[in-house]
Amino acid sequence: MKISILGGATTKFGELWNISPRDLAREAIFGALANSNIKSTQVEALFVGNMLSGILANQANLGSLFAEELGSFVPAMRVEGACASGGLALHNGINALKAGVYKTVVVLGIEKMTDHESNAITNGLMAAGSDEERMAGATFPGLYALIARAYMQKYNVTEEALAGVSVKNHFHGSLNPKAQFQRVITVDNVMKSAKIADPLKLLDCSPISDGAAAIVITSDPNPRAIHNKPVEILASEVATDSLSLHERESFVSLKSVVKASQNAYKKTGIKATDIQVAEIHDCFSIAEAIAVEDLGFSEKGMGAKDISKGKYTLTKGKIITNPSGGLKACGHPVGATGIKQIVEITEQLRGVAGKRQVKNAELGLAHNVGGSGAVAVIHILQNNL
Amino acid sequence: MKISILGGATTKFGELWNISPRDLAREAIFGALANSNIKSTQVEALFVGNMLSGILANQANLGSLFAEELGSFVPAMRVEGACASGGLALHNGINALKAGVYKTVVVLGIEKMTDHESNAITNGLMAAGSDEERMAGATFPGLYALIARAYMQKYNVTEEALAGVSVKNHFHGSLNPKAQFQRVITVDNVMKSAKIADPLKLLDCSPISDGAAAIVITSDPNPRAIHNKPVEILASEVATDSLSLHERESFVSLKSVVKASQNAYKKTGIKATDIQVAEIHDCFSIAEAIAVEDLGFSEKGMGAKDISKGKYTLTKGKIITNPSGGLKACGHPVGATGIKQIVEITEQLRGVAGKRQVKNAELGLAHNVGGSGAVAVIHILQNNL
Repeated sequence: MKISILGGATTKFGELWNISPRDLAREAIFGALANSNIKSTQVEALFVGNMLSGILANQANLGSLFAEELGSFVPAMRVEGACASGGLALHNGINALKAGVYKTVVVLGIEKMTDHESNAITNGLMAAGSDEERMAGATFPGLYALIARAYMQKYNVTEEALAGVSVKNHFHGSLNPKAQFQRVITVDNVMKSAKIADPLKLLDCSPISDGAAAIVITSDPNPRAIHNKPVEILASEVATDSLSLHERESFVSLKSVVKASQNAYKKTGIKATDIQVAEIHDCFSIAEAIAVEDLGFSEKGMGAKDISKGKYTLTKGKIITNPSGGLKACGHPVGATGIKQIVEITEQLRGVAGKRQVKNAELGLAHNVGGSGAVAVIHILQNNL
Repeated sequence: MKISILGGATTKFGELWNISPRDLAREAIFGALANSNIKSTQVEALFVGNMLSGILANQANLGSLFAEELGSFVPAMRVEGACASGGLALHNGINALKAGVYKTVVVLGIEKMTDHESNAITNGLMAAGSDEERMAGATFPGLYALIARAYMQKYNVTEEALAGVSVKNHFHGSLNPKAQFQRVITVDNVMKSAKIADPLKLLDCSPISDGAAAIVITSDPNPRAIHNKPVEILASEVATDSLSLHERESFVSLKSVVKASQNAYKKTGIKATDIQVAEIHDCFSIAEAIAVEDLGFSEKGMGAKDISKGKYTLTKGKIITNPSGGLKACGHPVGATGIKQIVEITEQLRGVAGKRQVKNAELGLAHNVGGSGAVAVIHILQNNL
C-alpha cells in the first residue's frame, strides 16, 4: 500500500511567548490541511508527538485536546519517545493507514518549552535519560560532551571541525523564514561562545524552542487527485538502544540509528548515496557528525571533517543535510522536530523550499533521535512526480 | 487479518512500595511471555501505555527503557491518552500488526503512583483535564460528582443505588488474588464512608494504585500452534470528545463511549446482548452506571438500578461486568488499567479465571476511558476454540 504525504506546515519556531499550545497546534494543523487540499471533516484520526507537556505544563491527553480543534472528535492519541516523539507519532500514523483502519490522518508534533523556568526545562529534558545518569548529575549537553570527547580522541577531530556543523546549519537557517535563528555564524563565533559542557560550547547546542508542525498522510491510491505534488513515504523504521551510555558498545556510533537506517535501506533497496537531502537530528554538533557516518553518508571518523569541508552544504554538496537549519538553527521544540523534518523534506521534494531549495531532490531522509540515541526513527521519502 | 492474543499477565495491583517500575514491567512482560509460550527474542516491538511517569517521576521514553528488559532493543514507544493509555497502546499495537510491520508484539501498561506525595498525584491526574476545569479548581472526583448529580436528578437514582456498583465490584475483587482490595463491602459501608465530592464517597472512588499488565499479540495465521487457547481481537475502536464537561451535549452519557462502541458493534455485527463478560472503566461508581447504558447493556437511566439488582453480578447476571473487581476493587494504576482489562477478558474467555470465572464466556468487551470521557477505547474479544 502506498502512503502519501499530501502536505504539511510548521509554525515559526522560536521563543513564542505570546502563543498558547492550542494556538500553535491550530496553526500547524490548519496550515497542513490547507497545504494538502484537505478539509478538517476528511481527517479520520489525529496522532500527536509531544514529550514535555505533561511534565512542564501538567497537560496530558493532548490527542483529545487537539482533536477538539478539528471539531469532529476523531480518534486521537499522543505518542512519546523523548525527542523522537514526532517521528514515532508518524510511525504509528503510517501503521494505522497500512492497517486500513484510517484512510487520511493528521500527524502533529508540538512543544511549548520557553514558558517554563530554565531548571524545570533542564530537569524535564532529563526525563529522556536513565536513573543512573540522572543520579550522576548528567545533563544532555554533558552526555553528548562525553560522546564528543571520545569521537575527537578516536578520530583526531578538532573542536573547530565540530563547529563546522553549526556554521553550516546557521547558514541554512539564514535561508529559512521559519527558523529560530536566521543569522550566519563563523567557526570563530562558535569557538568563542560560552562553554556549556567541555568541549561543547553554546553554539554547538540546539536551543530551547516553541513550535508545532503537522502533516496530512493518506492511503488514497490516487493522491494526485487531491494534491498535484504528493510525496511518498517509502520507509518508516524504528530501533532502540539502552537509555544509558554506559551500557553501549560504542560511544562514537549510535546503534539505534545504524539499525533503523540499515533496515530502511534494505527494505527499499535505496542506498545512502541515492539520497539528495536529509534532515538530521543535530541536537548537538557532535550528533550530526556521527549521524552522517551512521547513515552511511560519510566514512567513519570523517563526519565532522566532511561537514566542515562543505560536503553537506547547500549548493556545494551532493547530499544536503539540514537545509531547514536543523535543530541548531531552525530550533528544537522537541515533540515538533520529527514532524518539522518531514515538512522540510516534503517541501524540498516538491521544489517549493525557496532560497534553501536543494537541486534535483528526489529522495529524502529524516533522522529523528530520542535521548542520547535510546531510540531512532528513520523515514525515507520520495517525490512522486 | 486475524489478530490474536497469545497470553497475558498482571502483577499484583496495590500499594507496591517495595517494587520499582522496572521490576513491575519485567514481571508483567515476562509473565505475559511465559503465559503465551513466546520467547523474548520473538518479540518484534513494544508498545507501552503510561500516563504519569513523566509527570510524577520525571521518567519519559518508557518504550526504550522497558525494551532494555527484552534484551534485543526492538522498536518501542509510549502511547498516552490519560487513563485510556493502555487501551490506546493496544490500538497502536494492533494497527502495526495489521499493517504487516511487525508480527508479534508486546503491549505493556504500567503505572507507579504511590511513591509520590498525594497532592502531586491529584495534580498529576488533573493533567487529563482541561485548563478551564483546572483553573476552576476541579478534580476528577469533583467532575464525576457533577455527572452523578445530573444523573441522579434526571433518572431519580439514589446514592444507595450508585453504591451498588462498588458493592458488586468489591464482591468480584474478593475472588481475584491480584486485586488491591479483596474484601466484600455493603451498601451501608459505602454510605458511611467519608464524603469525597458530594454525592461521591470514598467507596464510590477507585484507589491510587501501582501495577503493570502485559499481553502478547500476534498476526500469526495459526496462533493455536503457539498457544492452545488463543483469543481473537475482533474490534479496536477509539473515539474522542471535548476535555471539558461544559462543552458536552449531555452529562449523563459519554459520547466517546457511545461512538466507539457503536462502531465496534457495527464493524463486527455483534450486539451488546451477545456479550457475556465486560471490563468497565469504573473510575467512580457513576462511571459504570453510565457505561452499561452507553454500551447498550442497560436502558437509559437503568444502569445503577440494574447493577444494584444483580444484573451484572457473577453467577446471577447474564452479562458480568468487572469480574476482576474493576478499577474500584482490583485497583487503578492508570496506564496499566486498559491492559489489565484485556488480561482479565482473555482469562475469562479461556476459562482460567478461577473463582471469578464467568460461565460460557465466548465474547468479551473492554471499555477504557481517559479523562471524564475525552477519549474512549473499546475492544471486543472472542475465544477462538
